[in-house]
Amino acid sequence: MSEKKIIVTIGREFGSGGHEIGKKLAEKLGVNFYDKNLIEMAAEHSGLDLSVLGATDEKAPSPFVSPYAPTVSDQLYRAQSEVIQQLAQKESFVIVGRCSNTILDECADPINVFIYAPLDVRIKRIMDRYLIDSPEKARKEILRTDKIRRGYYQYYSEYRWGDREGYDIMLDSSVLGIDGTVDLLFDFVHHKFK
Amino acid sequence: MSEKKIIVTIGREFGSGGHEIGKKLAEKLGVNFYDKNLIEMAAEHSGLDLSVLGATDEKAPSPFVSPYAPTVSDQLYRAQSEVIQQLAQKESFVIVGRCSNTILDECADPINVFIYAPLDVRIKRIMDRYLIDSPEKARKEILRTDKIRRGYYQYYSEYRWGDREGYDIMLDSSVLGIDGTVDLLFDFVHHKFK
Repeated sequence: MSEKKIIVTIGREFGSGGHEIGKKLAEKLGVNFYDKNLIEMAAEHSGLDLSVLGATDEKAPSPFVSPYAPTVSDQLYRAQSEVIQQLAQKESFVIVGRCSNTILDECADPINVFIYAPLDVRIKRIMDRYLIDSPEKARKEILRTDKIRRGYYQYYSEYRWGDREGYDIMLDSSVLGIDGTVDLLFDFVHHKFK
Repeated sequence: MSEKKIIVTIGREFGSGGHEIGKKLAEKLGVNFYDKNLIEMAAEHSGLDLSVLGATDEKAPSPFVSPYAPTVSDQLYRAQSEVIQQLAQKESFVIVGRCSNTILDECADPINVFIYAPLDVRIKRIMDRYLIDSPEKARKEILRTDKIRRGYYQYYSEYRWGDREGYDIMLDSSVLGIDGTVDLLFDFVHHKFK
C-alpha cells in the first residue's frame, strides 16, 4: 500500500450491518474508526453542548424552524464537517454515516461505500441485536431510521441516499455476510492503492 | 471453488465498460460469456427470424402495438429467457444485460452485478471507442442508449434499472479501472464460493 491516506466512508441501511462492517474494516486496515464518537469531537471543537448535539445527530433540521438562523442540526453538521475535514488532512480512517462522502468530496479522495441488505434480513438482524420480539416492530424501526438517515443525507448532499451516483461501491451484505463483505472491501482498498 | 455453478449477470450503463468487464471476468473464471450472441441462440431455439429479432434486442415493445398479441420484443424475451434458464441448468457463465438477473431469479442463484461510471468518463470512453468527435454527440448517444436499456429492464423486471434492490454488488468502474474491476469481481466470486 502507498503512503497515501486511506479514507473510507460508509453509508448504510439500518440493519444491514454497515456499522459493524466499518468497524471491522478499520481494524483490518489498522486505522481509526469514527461514528457517533464524532459528536464529542464536534462538541469539543465547536464549544456546543454535547447533550443537545447528541439528540440531533444524523437528523435534518425540523421544517418548523426559522430559515434565517442556523439550527442545532446545522451547527452540528458544520462542526462535524470541520472535524472530518481536519482528520482527512492528517490520518487514514473509516467513518460511517454523517454525509461523510459529501463532506470529503472536495478536500480528499475517499472510497465511498454503501451497504444494504434485503428487508427480511435486516428485520432478523435488528430483532436479534436489539432483542425486539416482533418482526413488525423491527420493520417499523428500520423504515423510521432509514427515513431519518435519508432525510439528513438529502438535506446536506446533492445526491440521493443509496443512489449509485454518490458511491464507488455498493454491496448487499447478505450475500457474503459481514466478514466476507469486510474482506471484499479490504480487497477494494488494496486494488485502489496497490 | 466448489462444484456449484458460477453464474454472473451484469447490468451496465452505456460507456461504463460493463461489457468488457464481463468478457474479461468470464475469461478469468474460465466460463462462457453471453451477450448479443444470445439472439442467435434464441432464434434457433424459437424458430423466429434472426434479422427481426436482432432489431428488438434489449428494447421494450412499442406502446403502439396490440395489447392482445405478443410483440416481437415479447417473443424474443421469452425465447432468450428459455435459453438463459436452460444454460443455467448446465453450465457456469457470465452474461451481460437482457434482464438476466430477473430471468434467473427463480431458477438459479446468480451473482447480480451493476456497472456504472460518471457521465464524463463514459463520454470519453464512447468517443474513443466509436471514434465520435463530439462530446455532445457521445453524451446524447449515452442518454439514448441508457433510456432504451432502462425501458427494457423496467418493462420486464419488478425492479428499477440500476437500483440497488436488484443487485448484489454495484461498482463505479472508473475507480479501479476495467482490469481492477474485473479483479474485484473475481474476488467477489471467490468469497462467495470459497
